[in-house]
Amino acid sequence: MRVLGVDPGLTRCGVGVVEGVAGRPLTMRGVGVVRTPSDEELGRRLVAVEQGIEAWLDEHRPDIVVVERVFSQHNVRTVMGTAQASAVAMLCASRRGLPVALHTPSEVKAAVTGSGRADKAQVGAMVTRLLRLDAPPKPADAADALALAICHIWRAPAQNRLQQAVTAHRAARPAAHVPPVRKGPTA
Amino acid sequence: MRVLGVDPGLTRCGVGVVEGVAGRPLTMRGVGVVRTPSDEELGRRLVAVEQGIEAWLDEHRPDIVVVERVFSQHNVRTVMGTAQASAVAMLCASRRGLPVALHTPSEVKAAVTGSGRADKAQVGAMVTRLLRLDAPPKPADAADALALAICHIWRAPAQNRLQQAVTAHRAARPAAHVPPVRKGPTA
Repeated sequence: MRVLGVDPGLTRCGVGVVEGVAGRPLTMRGVGVVRTPSDEELGRRLVAVEQGIEAWLDEHRPDIVVVERVFSQHNVRTVMGTAQASAVAMLCASRRGLPVALHTPSEVKAAVTGSGRADKAQVGAMVTRLLRLDAPPKPADAADALALAICHIWRAPAQNRLQQAVTAHRAARPAAHVPPVRKGPTA
Repeated sequence: MRVLGVDPGLTRCGVGVVEGVAGRPLTMRGVGVVRTPSDEELGRRLVAVEQGIEAWLDEHRPDIVVVERVFSQHNVRTVMGTAQASAVAMLCASRRGLPVALHTPSEVKAAVTGSGRADKAQVGAMVTRLLRLDAPPKPADAADALALAICHIWRAPAQNRLQQAVTAHRAARPAAHVPPVRKGPTA
């Protein structure tokens, strides 16, 4: 599974590509940041984010795009830009028919460090270790994008099992309430 | 001036096209709503909004796109969808090189009703009157999109005069600090 993680932002949008499956060593395929100048018009910044994400999708052909879920209780001034950049990332993925998954910052931190309240340095350290890099990716947005991708690869099997259990349960449940099939005259 | 107003939203995105200049009767060229199903995946909804806005841009070829400015103090649950839909509208416009303008809800209400705290019914009534329609456009999102376009047409001359004044002031100011030009040996 090849995953593009996106830590959305207008000034710095972290992007990282990780390949692998749960339970085996993971490989980093690329990491970087899409930047747009803060004195640029908002519409133009969104176009620049779109072009940046498109370039990453073209080059790395991921199977899925994972975007950090934006909460509105964050800093009010930055949350709008984050929401807008995440919309562009999701749009680019869905337009290509790629699945999009969202994970919260605490899910990501818990997945890579064991604690949902880990700090940036801890996340950076674990990303470095898990991907066997020489140094933590800079800036933090780039490391966060890789952490998102790792989180998704590790959570995916559990989510799939959960989904299968839910599906099996739903398939089994109605049968219990349906009276036994009686052979009618036409049978 | 032909203006496409967009009242952004994921479930209902109001769109309205108004043509005219300040001080003369305005003409409605089109009004409608781009809808996306609330049980659809977020990425797909954004793609549907994009396709809807693109269709309006193709059909009406506006000179400018005016989008309602989103504030995060609104209802926390709906503000993210509004921010994401507005990002798509701005992206579509800027990608075509069209200018994008933003107006706040209170600017729009003040422009069309005289009061920044007017209710939906008042805005609908004034839009109906100003565009000489038979009935208020439904739903309210459609009327709001037309109100945005009207607001922009009426505010544009004032904004242009302000911009000209600022430009003139900036052009004049440095000259005052520059020493008088002296004729040198080469002159």
